[in-house]
Amino acid sequence: MASCGKKLINDPNDVVTEFIEGLVESYPGMQYLDGFPEVKVVLRADVAGAKNDKVAIISGGGSGHEPAHAGFVGEGMLTAAVCGDVFASPQVDSILAGIRAVTGPMGCLLIVKNYTGDRLNFGLAAEQAKSEGYKVESVIVGDDCALPPPRGIAGRRGLAGTILVHKVAGAAAAAGLPLEDVAEEARHASELVGTMGVALSVCTLPGQVTPDRLGLGKMELGLGIHGEPGAAVADIQPVAVVVSHVLKQILSPETNYVPITRGSRVVLMVNGLGATPAMELMIAAGKAVPQLQLEHGLAVERVYTGSFMTSLDMAGFSITIMKADQSILQRLDAATTAPYWPVGVDGNRPPAKIPVPLPQSPSARNDVSLCRPVQLSKQGILLEVAIEAAATAVVNLKDPLNEWDSKVGDGDCGSTMYRGATAILEDMKKYYPLNDAAETVNEMGSSISRVMGGTSGIIYTILCKAAYAYLKAKAQPDVTSHQWAEALEASITAVSKYGGAIAGFRTLLDALIPASQALQQSLKAGEDSVTAFVLSSEAALAGAESTKLMQAQAGRSSYVSPEIVASVPDPGAMAAAAWYRAAALAVRNTLESSLSAASSAP
Amino acid sequence: MASCGKKLINDPNDVVTEFIEGLVESYPGMQYLDGFPEVKVVLRADVAGAKNDKVAIISGGGSGHEPAHAGFVGEGMLTAAVCGDVFASPQVDSILAGIRAVTGPMGCLLIVKNYTGDRLNFGLAAEQAKSEGYKVESVIVGDDCALPPPRGIAGRRGLAGTILVHKVAGAAAAAGLPLEDVAEEARHASELVGTMGVALSVCTLPGQVTPDRLGLGKMELGLGIHGEPGAAVADIQPVAVVVSHVLKQILSPETNYVPITRGSRVVLMVNGLGATPAMELMIAAGKAVPQLQLEHGLAVERVYTGSFMTSLDMAGFSITIMKADQSILQRLDAATTAPYWPVGVDGNRPPAKIPVPLPQSPSARNDVSLCRPVQLSKQGILLEVAIEAAATAVVNLKDPLNEWDSKVGDGDCGSTMYRGATAILEDMKKYYPLNDAAETVNEMGSSISRVMGGTSGIIYTILCKAAYAYLKAKAQPDVTSHQWAEALEASITAVSKYGGAIAGFRTLLDALIPASQALQQSLKAGEDSVTAFVLSSEAALAGAESTKLMQAQAGRSSYVSPEIVASVPDPGAMAAAAWYRAAALAVRNTLESSLSAASSAP
Repeated sequence: MASCGKKLINDPNDVVTEFIEGLVESYPGMQYLDGFPEVKVVLRADVAGAKNDKVAIISGGGSGHEPAHAGFVGEGMLTAAVCGDVFASPQVDSILAGIRAVTGPMGCLLIVKNYTGDRLNFGLAAEQAKSEGYKVESVIVGDDCALPPPRGIAGRRGLAGTILVHKVAGAAAAAGLPLEDVAEEARHASELVGTMGVALSVCTLPGQVTPDRLGLGKMELGLGIHGEPGAAVADIQPVAVVVSHVLKQILSPETNYVPITRGSRVVLMVNGLGATPAMELMIAAGKAVPQLQLEHGLAVERVYTGSFMTSLDMAGFSITIMKADQSILQRLDAATTAPYWPVGVDGNRPPAKIPVPLPQSPSARNDVSLCRPVQLSKQGILLEVAIEAAATAVVNLKDPLNEWDSKVGDGDCGSTMYRGATAILEDMKKYYPLNDAAETVNEMGSSISRVMGGTSGIIYTILCKAAYAYLKAKAQPDVTSHQWAEALEASITAVSKYGGAIAGFRTLLDALIPASQALQQSLKAGEDSVTAFVLSSEAALAGAESTKLMQAQAGRSSYVSPEIVASVPDPGAMAAAAWYRAAALAVRNTLESSLSAASSAP
Repeated sequence: MASCGKKLINDPNDVVTEFIEGLVESYPGMQYLDGFPEVKVVLRADVAGAKNDKVAIISGGGSGHEPAHAGFVGEGMLTAAVCGDVFASPQVDSILAGIRAVTGPMGCLLIVKNYTGDRLNFGLAAEQAKSEGYKVESVIVGDDCALPPPRGIAGRRGLAGTILVHKVAGAAAAAGLPLEDVAEEARHASELVGTMGVALSVCTLPGQVTPDRLGLGKMELGLGIHGEPGAAVADIQPVAVVVSHVLKQILSPETNYVPITRGSRVVLMVNGLGATPAMELMIAAGKAVPQLQLEHGLAVERVYTGSFMTSLDMAGFSITIMKADQSILQRLDAATTAPYWPVGVDGNRPPAKIPVPLPQSPSARNDVSLCRPVQLSKQGILLEVAIEAAATAVVNLKDPLNEWDSKVGDGDCGSTMYRGATAILEDMKKYYPLNDAAETVNEMGSSISRVMGGTSGIIYTILCKAAYAYLKAKAQPDVTSHQWAEALEASITAVSKYGGAIAGFRTLLDALIPASQALQQSLKAGEDSVTAFVLSSEAALAGAESTKLMQAQAGRSSYVSPEIVASVPDPGAMAAAAWYRAAALAVRNTLESSLSAASSAP
């Protein structure tokens, strides 16, 4: 497998200068020195060298580690960042330019990752600056814990722990401390921090095609940030296992790299290597914290999760642990305007999870056991008749609905509607509180929600819940005809709003909207309730039939040829018209028969 | 080419809950509802529903877009984020739990990306919450500009522009506005924003192996954030060209998606899709700003660059443009504790670049033209003699040095040293100010720096510059023997500090450290300067010879077998001993001959 080297860049030679241009466009608190391509220095826009009355903090190194180092330029962190080309130490003249640009009478501290090139170039720049009269101190950071203690010059590599040293030094400088004290705090911090990385891929150098030396299912442990091979290759394991291994290595009493023992207070940094999404970093952080607490007996005071010191587009992460007493925590928590320092990490930690809240105004379902009333009111009788007729109509229409739907959709409209109707019929007998129309409508919604899947299930649930919300607010316990009409309108509004359909979109609304309009007009015209209901049900049927002439705008129907669509009505609209019509006729028949029974009574 | 699906996760089914656990570990300002795995709600730790005296802002949707939406929970932005499974809308009960957890008497606003599932589930939850007595408003965001205006229900997709709507709504709520006004501001903002994406890869669903439908050298334009194909596939082009195409599409007067015309004030968001490093995003931002200004005549007020609304590990970015009058800018600039909202973006924009500063105390080189003195002082004569002898010794040793180095290193030690020595001999004749020892040493460093590459070049430059810094501060114009000795010590200290070597590491320090120690001891013992110099040069030679017995600790020598290394001295140490010895002997001979000349004078 080869990484294809696809990158959204212009010219591989310009990636660093173009990065700096974009960075400074994004952050008005930053400027850069006008010395491209040799001099690539990003600095605080609010600091002018000779007038800087604080110790300047300068870092940098090869590029390819973005946001490091330039993204950490800001009050309370770096005063300037000196950028080399990708994975190449910056030139001495570039470093010297950075020193001159931001160093005032308090002097400057150079924070250098432990690589020979960086040490030498920053070192020479420091000596030159001293000969120009500047006060200069240097601190070299080598936080890598992947390899056994080295015998030679190279020493431990500087990795993401350097960012924490930047923060400590930057906060000390912002507090107004003299150079010697700032340098001492940075040196102290560098001795408290350890880092180790894990990679799933190698990085892509700009303009190059990089063969992936890592095969399928393999990961590298203890890698650096310049594409160099890791200390070991292993099979990929669950991240909890990987994190456990890395933590043990960093905290190993054999290497004794960090002075952390049981009971220590620490901060944790989980650092993405360039192409690792926030989700994966958070998952690693979520595993590291309890392991540090329970297995290593440490108090985890802060968790910094993000991509801080990357290796171009490498997939993977590094973990950094730093011993953190109160004075270190104070420096880490101090305010900074550096845009890539994570915010919101400090502060008291409340319980991570809180109970799922119960409804503010509990529905009857939760504390009152629902039951069918022993004695139905007049309205309760009508409601039962209407629901039974409507649901039965849907049950009877199952096959034609499926047939129509098989021509324009996925062929299950009848079956889906049948499930809802059947559940309503069953539940109504068991526990619908039929004398309370609002709560009955609500329970119909719950029955539908329980058994009907897909879009139609949620649409019908919204229909019932919106009607319930209206009825509950407006009408208790008896519902007038006008209120029924307005509840229907509220339901249609909600379905249209959340579902996105309007009249003419070949949906159930093409039955319900004409019905609602006819109902309101008839009532306004002074028709009696039953007549208005029946008239409106005729409008529903006519509306549903008219969907044959409409183009589909949603769902699978919208991909079907117009000729086929024109041969059948929309099954959703036909189902809606059917149950509406059945309800209206059942109400009329019941009232008529009770009227005739009353008139024929002795 | 197939994406290998390598991911640092535990169980693909747990990625969302484990993400939330890690997020809440990182940010103590957040909590989550204890309802895993069904209820996945992240909320502000400082807000308790019934007591919330501000409008609650709730958003959410499918996961896989991290940090969206949970990373934007904080004062001034989201009050709660409801997370679905990866790319799946959250369940109604989960949304309802979120509403109940954070909604007080002022009500809540649901901000929903325009996807059918999200619309319906948030819609039903809104209706249920209303029926429980909550005040609820919803705003649906569809900012996609990739496709032609749709006829049907689906409409424009919600993309990264949603984050800007979150910010506007969150700031309006934090300002204490009532629900209707907050909803109106959010709705207004959603009408001002347009987005379009570009991808170089598809995303990897957790636990799955995803075949990459994009071939080598191809990109997709106008993609969504759920792995669905883009509107078009094209050959990869330079990012400036890609950005230009995307900007034209968003601002197209044909689609008229955003009400932005020449002269408008806008904000820009460059959003990474998951696996795109900061460097690439900044390069895109750096290209977009001048194009918006110059080609589209827009005032770019803010630039938000980062990964805000991702699509798992997709490589690529989206660009969002939002019309921004003063009231919108005020909302975007308002403080928030949401950890992933970018900081440092607002404020006055100073010039992006400033001149590279000149040296504070200009070196003689820059404003005084150096020249060899017409008349040499006594010290000037000795310095010339010493330098000439030292450089000539190095020239003469070229071949043996190369030979030794070919056995233990890369074989160019002699040639490299030869270049430096030759340049010193030439430059000395031309312009070394030999009567000023400090400046002469400085110029030797500059000659070396100009012609000698590699580590040895920078080491020798540091040697000279550190001696110069010492001499300049301590000794003007004549230098005492003790000062020379201390300058040598300062040089050794600097080389050791920046180069990382100490005595016994088989480097030039194994000649210079014994020399320095011998020099100081002899002077302390009362020897005359010349005797002390000559004695110390013997120590240098002895030290260099002794490197045969040392193991290499740096450079290529450290990889060579001990037997071979033991057969030759370290060439760097031998070179140092040779020039040191030659200088000492030349000084002694010159003084002796001038003494005998003086004594033999008539």
